[in-house]
Amino acid sequence: MPDTLGIGIIGAGRIGKIHAGNIARFIPRARLEGIADINLDGQQETWAGELGARIVSRDPADLLGDPAIQAVVICSSTDTHADLAMAAARAGKHIFCEKPIDLTVSKVKAALEAVRQGGVKFQIGFNRRFDHNFRRIRELTLAGEIGEVQIVRISSRDPAAPPPAYVAVSGGIFIDMMIHDFDMARFQAGSEITEVYAAGAVLIDPEIGRAGDVDTAIVTLRFANGALGIIDNSRKAVYGYDQRVEVFGSAGAAAAENDLPNTVKLSNAAGITGEKPLYFFLERYKGAFIDEMGAFTEAVLEDKVVPVSGEDGLADLYAALAAGKSLKEKRPVAIEEIQ
Amino acid sequence: MPDTLGIGIIGAGRIGKIHAGNIARFIPRARLEGIADINLDGQQETWAGELGARIVSRDPADLLGDPAIQAVVICSSTDTHADLAMAAARAGKHIFCEKPIDLTVSKVKAALEAVRQGGVKFQIGFNRRFDHNFRRIRELTLAGEIGEVQIVRISSRDPAAPPPAYVAVSGGIFIDMMIHDFDMARFQAGSEITEVYAAGAVLIDPEIGRAGDVDTAIVTLRFANGALGIIDNSRKAVYGYDQRVEVFGSAGAAAAENDLPNTVKLSNAAGITGEKPLYFFLERYKGAFIDEMGAFTEAVLEDKVVPVSGEDGLADLYAALAAGKSLKEKRPVAIEEIQ
Amino acid sequence: MPDTLGIGIIGAGRIGKIHAGNIARFIPRARLEGIADINLDGQQETWAGELGARIVSRDPADLLGDPAIQAVVICSSTDTHADLAMAAARAGKHIFCEKPIDLTVSKVKAALEAVRQGGVKFQIGFNRRFDHNFRRIRELTLAGEIGEVQIVRISSRDPAAPPPAYVAVSGGIFIDMMIHDFDMARFQAGSEITEVYAAGAVLIDPEIGRAGDVDTAIVTLRFANGALGIIDNSRKAVYGYDQRVEVFGSAGAAAAENDLPNTVKLSNAAGITGEKPLYFFLERYKGAFIDEMGAFTEAVLEDKVVPVSGEDGLADLYAALAAGKSLKEKRPVAIEEIQ
Amino acid sequence: MPDTLGIGIIGAGRIGKIHAGNIARFIPRARLEGIADINLDGQQETWAGELGARIVSRDPADLLGDPAIQAVVICSSTDTHADLAMAAARAGKHIFCEKPIDLTVSKVKAALEAVRQGGVKFQIGFNRRFDHNFRRIRELTLAGEIGEVQIVRISSRDPAAPPPAYVAVSGGIFIDMMIHDFDMARFQAGSEITEVYAAGAVLIDPEIGRAGDVDTAIVTLRFANGALGIIDNSRKAVYGYDQRVEVFGSAGAAAAENDLPNTVKLSNAAGITGEKPLYFFLERYKGAFIDEMGAFTEAVLEDKVVPVSGEDGLADLYAALAAGKSLKEKRPVAIEEIQ
Repeated sequence: MPDTLGIGIIGAGRIGKIHAGNIARFIPRARLEGIADINLDGQQETWAGELGARIVSRDPADLLGDPAIQAVVICSSTDTHADLAMAAARAGKHIFCEKPIDLTVSKVKAALEAVRQGGVKFQIGFNRRFDHNFRRIRELTLAGEIGEVQIVRISSRDPAAPPPAYVAVSGGIFIDMMIHDFDMARFQAGSEITEVYAAGAVLIDPEIGRAGDVDTAIVTLRFANGALGIIDNSRKAVYGYDQRVEVFGSAGAAAAENDLPNTVKLSNAAGITGEKPLYFFLERYKGAFIDEMGAFTEAVLEDKVVPVSGEDGLADLYAALAAGKSLKEKRPVAIEEIQ
Repeated sequence: MPDTLGIGIIGAGRIGKIHAGNIARFIPRARLEGIADINLDGQQETWAGELGARIVSRDPADLLGDPAIQAVVICSSTDTHADLAMAAARAGKHIFCEKPIDLTVSKVKAALEAVRQGGVKFQIGFNRRFDHNFRRIRELTLAGEIGEVQIVRISSRDPAAPPPAYVAVSGGIFIDMMIHDFDMARFQAGSEITEVYAAGAVLIDPEIGRAGDVDTAIVTLRFANGALGIIDNSRKAVYGYDQRVEVFGSAGAAAAENDLPNTVKLSNAAGITGEKPLYFFLERYKGAFIDEMGAFTEAVLEDKVVPVSGEDGLADLYAALAAGKSLKEKRPVAIEEIQ
Repeated sequence: MPDTLGIGIIGAGRIGKIHAGNIARFIPRARLEGIADINLDGQQETWAGELGARIVSRDPADLLGDPAIQAVVICSSTDTHADLAMAAARAGKHIFCEKPIDLTVSKVKAALEAVRQGGVKFQIGFNRRFDHNFRRIRELTLAGEIGEVQIVRISSRDPAAPPPAYVAVSGGIFIDMMIHDFDMARFQAGSEITEVYAAGAVLIDPEIGRAGDVDTAIVTLRFANGALGIIDNSRKAVYGYDQRVEVFGSAGAAAAENDLPNTVKLSNAAGITGEKPLYFFLERYKGAFIDEMGAFTEAVLEDKVVPVSGEDGLADLYAALAAGKSLKEKRPVAIEEIQ
Repeated sequence: MPDTLGIGIIGAGRIGKIHAGNIARFIPRARLEGIADINLDGQQETWAGELGARIVSRDPADLLGDPAIQAVVICSSTDTHADLAMAAARAGKHIFCEKPIDLTVSKVKAALEAVRQGGVKFQIGFNRRFDHNFRRIRELTLAGEIGEVQIVRISSRDPAAPPPAYVAVSGGIFIDMMIHDFDMARFQAGSEITEVYAAGAVLIDPEIGRAGDVDTAIVTLRFANGALGIIDNSRKAVYGYDQRVEVFGSAGAAAAENDLPNTVKLSNAAGITGEKPLYFFLERYKGAFIDEMGAFTEAVLEDKVVPVSGEDGLADLYAALAAGKSLKEKRPVAIEEIQ
């Protein structure tokens, strides 16, 4: 393995651009070698050139076939993730894959099998595990400061509802949005989810209801270690992106508040007013996007276990599917019903 | 109706003493006329004398028969509440009754019927509605600051688990502890609970499990107005009494943090450390106990609707019973199944 | 000494009423025996009767001559404090005296001498030492948590400027307002002030300037133990009564924030807004007024040293006078120049 | 003027490296063209090469003579700033100069004169003006939210005292450390300092006293617009870098708290503990270093006024010298005494 990792980006949309820029600027041990996007346009070509990408192409195969590229970052549309992951694994490329791997269990399993056979690393883009706040909570738990984990409580609310057209193809709130929280819950509990109960409602946009989804959801979790969990999701918090986690245990509790753009408080006749949370995930998880890529680079170069595995991605998908089933059937659903 | 309200206290235990002291010192329009406790001892007699009680007795009938007493405060053991309320109603005395009215729906209904026939006021001691924090949230909601309520989120955790012997006769966590939170949830949602789903676990004290109860519980609520709710209870938070409420709506959210004994933060090499919450309900709800009694006095003297009615007490009991059934049957339970 | 302390109140204005009410309701070991006010009116008479005062009079001598009264609380106008204290001392009554003892050093010294000869206790009403926040800071310092005190920083701002007519007879901002902060500074430093430098300005109300005073002031302090101090005063903080103290030392720092009426934060598109501080001293120092009287009662009954002595009052006056001189002469002034 | 700005770095120490890295990675409109350091070593050469610097030299003249370089960043030792600035101005290069320009008024004036004659931009590295918190306070003031500024209050404390050897050549606490706060005070007040009074003490390290300096200082300011200011400095806050600013005015107050590495609070039997502030200036002002360079680049490319001018640097130096004189002569010192 060389000193630095040659990386190719597949998919130059919003998140692909974030990863490419981070690799070029912030990951000293990684090199941005190429960028491929099937819909590559002139603006993207210029951008890729400025970042110093050697290969700029419409065909991901150009990256998979390049010997200077040891790893790919899959940021294309969700329905291509599994196929690209399988192709990359066959080409012997290590893989960083955006979440979700796929919306169906069978394709995820096929991708995991290909990865296994290819003997490559496979990390899923659950970036929130790398958030400075949530990572700190986990560190405190691992340091024994919280004792035995008893309750994991997550509030996760978006600043604005997506267009109903997006909702219709998103896989629904549990796969599209809450899957991050299922991953966070498993991460913080240090245990697998065994059962979920989902309550949901359409309180924000009736169009979301007509698209067959809910926009407000509360899910109760049971973990293998006996702990309980709660997640609440809303598609629209008017005060901005609300991302809070609390872990409560036998020896204490650790809770993270939102990140704010600054610490200033204005005191006047109306009260004491501080800033709203950082607007959305690009702002809030800016550092987490860098750190997850740094961890992936490190794991490949040092042949270490990746911090968020394909099995994690599968487990999170199980939880999301179980939540969907619970909502539909109005009863708690055991994860093993889904497996 | 006279200018001030003559009140008799039935039951001179911990909470009876609080109410008696508050009436004597903080409710200008109320007079403490008498105190009755079937187990009255010398210490209590001295205390009652110092407070200026004219009647100090072992027999509640001495209060119910006294013409200078217009209202009684029932603070005796739970199993006597309903009978005493019925006797008081028959005697034409207005009633402030500690929660719960009774553990069974039929006795609560009988008490409510007696109250109706007696034409007296009947207020239940759900003191938390009068807490400065929670009341402020409700005011903000009523002022339209939060818009339509979508999620009510309550964390309610005690500083230490009760003895298993107490747990065995308490009616269980939902009736003994979470009933306060059901009342708070209804109060904050401004709507009735229609369905509950309860998850519970024994994570703190196996003896509680052997007594047939859980010590950690999460309950999901549905309200008639479409909103969702979550309550988490723990019998033991090592950092103290954790009482937080958040109401999230279409136009904003209002959240109350715990009250602390002081605002001091100590900064040193270990971090920035502030105080733990006020220890337990006597400290935290000190002002609420006064304010609920003031509101009761006002309601009687001015012939106004009491702020927490017997019907509230019944609705809270339904929710608690439904939660118990949900936990046992591992499914969501509609309130109408209980009614 | 009897089990409880018989107390007479001299002066039934705002602060006298506070003390009388506190003694009657909150100080179990004190009895309110009498109230005297040279301008006693019918409203005050009714109030005194309701509180159970045995003596209600226009003549303080009626209290000083009563054998059931062991202590008096002097709450009359400032210009009468010293004379009443001397008369009380001669009558062998213990004395709680509102601040300041007098505006001149000579009268304060005469009062202290009378107290010494009378062998009575003499406590000054610097109530802020009993504030839950500021007391906690001092406890942390005494417990060694802060190490050697290096900087004491006090912000003390009123919610609204007094009428210029009041300012004209108040003795000026240093004696009328900042004297509390000098006392707090000495209390927190655990050391005497040796030098002050005062900067002042008229920024709020030109009338205050025409009355010969300033409405905004910053004073730098030197303490005998080497520590430095800063106090800032403003006559008008539009967001309310701002009372903050920070003690910084070799091992850490302790800082108190304002008390708020509740902990609720409203999150909406405008930001995250919490309450303004408690309005003014009656609200903020409600508990401190009770605790100082409790401490006085205890000191007399148990023959202990009073927590705020006449010598404290004199030292605070020195600092205030030195600050006035510093402002006038535009130079730092040593306390010994005043003594 | 070209689309992007070619920049050369003079001085490759700690701060020079920060600026070089920021230009290379974060300022899209700037190009890092060269790096010169009279003590250039191999490690620095490698680093400069990795950043893509075209010129890597021991002689600043190599940068000043290069036509592709339009601006230089002076990060060498303080005693070389003025001479390099003059040479750069003569060479027609725009200048970003680290603070202070020089320790003497005459050399600063000479440098400003050369800049004037050269017709180049000259920005001083008072990075704190670009801090997200302090900038926000200023924005609120400019938006009228605070009304007329009445008090500017700054606490500025370092996490650890510098070695006494450094102190001896630093120019003293006012020029070395508090000069940042004088600049912040002028920035926030929107007005010039007219008078200072300094109190200082040696409370942390006697060696600092033996080097003729103080390690703890409080300075009172008067501004031309009538406002007052307070700055406190300590060379050692055991809890870390303490950087807080409060602006108090006729319509409100805005206050910035420290930045923390994360928002997590740990609740346990010891209290509620959060993180210490970010360790030191490299961490705390990371974004400010980027933003000041971006603003400089913008000012040059768009021929706009630089946000922190040489005149600002001179005014800050006046304040620092006046504070030193005040401390020595134990009296308030007017700025015009220094000019």
